[in-house]
Amino acid sequence: MNIILASTSTLFGGEYLAYLKEELIQLYKEIDEIIFVPFARPGGISHDDYTQKVRLFFETINIKVKGLHEFVDKTEALNNAKGYFTGGGNTFLLVKTLHEENLMTVLKQNIENGKPYLGCSAGSNIGGQNMKTTNDMPIVYPSSFECMALVPFNINPHYLDPNPELKHNGETRETRIKEFLTQNDIKVVGLREGNWIRKIGDAITVEGSELTRIFEKGNEPYEIEAGTKL
Amino acid sequence: MNIILASTSTLFGGEYLAYLKEELIQLYKEIDEIIFVPFARPGGISHDDYTQKVRLFFETINIKVKGLHEFVDKTEALNNAKGYFTGGGNTFLLVKTLHEENLMTVLKQNIENGKPYLGCSAGSNIGGQNMKTTNDMPIVYPSSFECMALVPFNINPHYLDPNPELKHNGETRETRIKEFLTQNDIKVVGLREGNWIRKIGDAITVEGSELTRIFEKGNEPYEIEAGTKL
Repeated sequence: MNIILASTSTLFGGEYLAYLKEELIQLYKEIDEIIFVPFARPGGISHDDYTQKVRLFFETINIKVKGLHEFVDKTEALNNAKGYFTGGGNTFLLVKTLHEENLMTVLKQNIENGKPYLGCSAGSNIGGQNMKTTNDMPIVYPSSFECMALVPFNINPHYLDPNPELKHNGETRETRIKEFLTQNDIKVVGLREGNWIRKIGDAITVEGSELTRIFEKGNEPYEIEAGTKL
Repeated sequence: MNIILASTSTLFGGEYLAYLKEELIQLYKEIDEIIFVPFARPGGISHDDYTQKVRLFFETINIKVKGLHEFVDKTEALNNAKGYFTGGGNTFLLVKTLHEENLMTVLKQNIENGKPYLGCSAGSNIGGQNMKTTNDMPIVYPSSFECMALVPFNINPHYLDPNPELKHNGETRETRIKEFLTQNDIKVVGLREGNWIRKIGDAITVEGSELTRIFEKGNEPYEIEAGTKL
């Protein structure tokens, strides 16, 4: 396998995907075209507009982009593609659409056969075992929460430390993930913005500029450094 | 109907339910016992421990509390009860449990027949049309997102304004609710902590110390004051 699952597409004050540019040149070095999966639609953006935004970035590294929504036969399009990118937005909408069109398994099989994959945020959530550690609002009802299981754990993208100054009684991210672990026995990787999971073959590491927080059932959460194997 | 749907159980620096005490004396003035629905389990707390926490508060206003989990026949228990309180925690876990045991409809019918109901946070979400505007993590998969529809809109509890100082790329609450409105045509009441919905008969008002933010499909969000009819 040859995949990147990133916490976010965009760092604070940065341009879209800019912080990942060198990594993406490596990820896609043997291909010149990818299919973009726009179904998560951040802020309700149209499939076309979202694909155009992605296309503008990928022009800078000489990779052509086709939107998956442009194809009548999406299964065939995925099977014929050279590589993939799934962008962020609403994970419920993304997973519902992929399951409705029976595309989750098709995408998974192609990636497991070695085609390069980039996921950001919601696109990283679907690389995990299931979407039960997304931060998103359940604006639609998917037929299942199961995902591609490209890695043997779940991802919590945009991981955020508790803010001791906040006079607000909503649950912290850590509390939410601990609630997940009362109902599930799956490791959760709390990926802070700036970090990503890199899987090459069977080797999985965490990369990026920040520490990464790991949550496991029955253990206290702990931090790992960039380069650590998972 | 005679219900309160509150944003939160606890204000910053306050005691459990303390800010609602006078309202709850009024809500429950004709009864001396309620059933508590503990299924949302905040932080994974046990049903017994959660019920005990609730019991301690309600002793101060001379109302006895029984936990719904204590009954073998929960439908009969709800039908025999004089009033109800559903506490906060994880809305997915709450809704899954209520649907699994076919209790959502039983609770709804009893409340529509006039028995008093208090919901806080997740317990308020289930008073809305569906749970698609919860803030919670989808740690379990409910058989449906449909809720009791005690009011003709959805509630977003713990509503939080965007923080312009936050260097974080996760979606704001407002962005999430706007994404909901791209997929659904249901009014959303953004209930800040300190506020609650009060329904007496057919009259619905918003109450509390803060303004309340209303989101509707096709309109810009707007603010309403305490006392406004909904």
